[in-house]
Amino acid sequence: MSVGDKIYEGKAKILRETEDPLVVIQDFKDDATAFNALKKGTIRGKGKINCTLSTYFFSYLSRHGIPTHFLSQESEHVMKIKRLQMIPLEVVMRNIVAGSLAKRTGLPEGQPLPKPVLEWYYKRDDLGDPIVNRDHIRMMGLASDNVLRSVESLARRINDLLAAHLLEKGILLVDMKLEFGTDSKGVVLLGDEISGDTCRFWDSTTKEKMDKDRFRQDLGQVEEFYQEVFRRVTGHD
Amino acid sequence: MSVGDKIYEGKAKILRETEDPLVVIQDFKDDATAFNALKKGTIRGKGKINCTLSTYFFSYLSRHGIPTHFLSQESEHVMKIKRLQMIPLEVVMRNIVAGSLAKRTGLPEGQPLPKPVLEWYYKRDDLGDPIVNRDHIRMMGLASDNVLRSVESLARRINDLLAAHLLEKGILLVDMKLEFGTDSKGVVLLGDEISGDTCRFWDSTTKEKMDKDRFRQDLGQVEEFYQEVFRRVTGHD
Repeated sequence: MSVGDKIYEGKAKILRETEDPLVVIQDFKDDATAFNALKKGTIRGKGKINCTLSTYFFSYLSRHGIPTHFLSQESEHVMKIKRLQMIPLEVVMRNIVAGSLAKRTGLPEGQPLPKPVLEWYYKRDDLGDPIVNRDHIRMMGLASDNVLRSVESLARRINDLLAAHLLEKGILLVDMKLEFGTDSKGVVLLGDEISGDTCRFWDSTTKEKMDKDRFRQDLGQVEEFYQEVFRRVTGHD
Repeated sequence: MSVGDKIYEGKAKILRETEDPLVVIQDFKDDATAFNALKKGTIRGKGKINCTLSTYFFSYLSRHGIPTHFLSQESEHVMKIKRLQMIPLEVVMRNIVAGSLAKRTGLPEGQPLPKPVLEWYYKRDDLGDPIVNRDHIRMMGLASDNVLRSVESLARRINDLLAAHLLEKGILLVDMKLEFGTDSKGVVLLGDEISGDTCRFWDSTTKEKMDKDRFRQDLGQVEEFYQEVFRRVTGHD
């Protein structure tokens, strides 16, 4: 592989080689997909917003002792990150009932949870990213018990930190999807991104949706709300 | 309520009052349903077979220290059981990949699991009995952590005991669905039934299905295989 070569292209990001084998370029696209890519579209300015918002959140978490893959923001929609061996799991942390949790439990969307709820999903597009439990994870050898414990502890801390921080900016962190990996020394780091594509953000007063659900559910003003979260969080336009 | 009154009618069983408020009649039907009752039918002789087989398994488990709701078999398809407050969860124990585990993981049906896998399902027909995890169970208050620990420990012992016992009779216990409840003193007991309706039984040599999958998948000879399991397990025709 040479510098600039594509390592991986996902629904919303492209990863590319750099001159350093331990460092990778993460390039954020404006493309949006939903329902396991059955719905496709574009959200103008999303690449820039998600890259800059992720930079903000990764830096914030890092200052609070959370190890992440973030190294530097290179341009509006490009960041440098550490190369990770990704764990093929999505960790979802939930503070308020929404989305599949409402369907699974029959509880009404919007009901606050007494304690944050953690869910594991197996990252397998061909299977529709099914929910799994620890026995499934062990059985498939997706992560060791030690790594799982680290991931769970990090996920709960990240959720607590971000929910508290966002609340001060008038935003409810309803739920968030996190991905983790291990670096060249086997240390577990937070990877991927933190944005309106991977979190549910609601206005803390009006409970208005400010995230990808606007795209999923055709609520309109998608760009405007991505921009508004960006403004509230970073203080910039 | 008076003696004989129906307490509950499920897909395969009817519960009735007795003269003793702590004792209930469990009457096994020949009716069979599958896919959350989308498919319906009758398996001749199933009521008698499932009642007698459950009597056999409950007695076997009881002799090995597992507390169950079973009191006595009253007739071919009727047993007396202790009245339980049922926990609204199904516990599935799996030893070999089959059914939804194959769909969830992409692993081939028939692959033996290095360790038994435990799954929790929320008993809610209207939601399609969704899979849940401990955080979901806690959040909905379906069972206390103490009760959950008892249930998990019992489910793993029951699976170990029955898998070993069935293997000596030429039957693989592929997976089984268990339901638990608490008695008037708050003790956790195994409830429901143990039969070809709630377990996957395969011939240990030919791997032929000997359970409700024959009905679900229209494999034919449904009655014959229920009868054959009955014969191998109880030694009677």
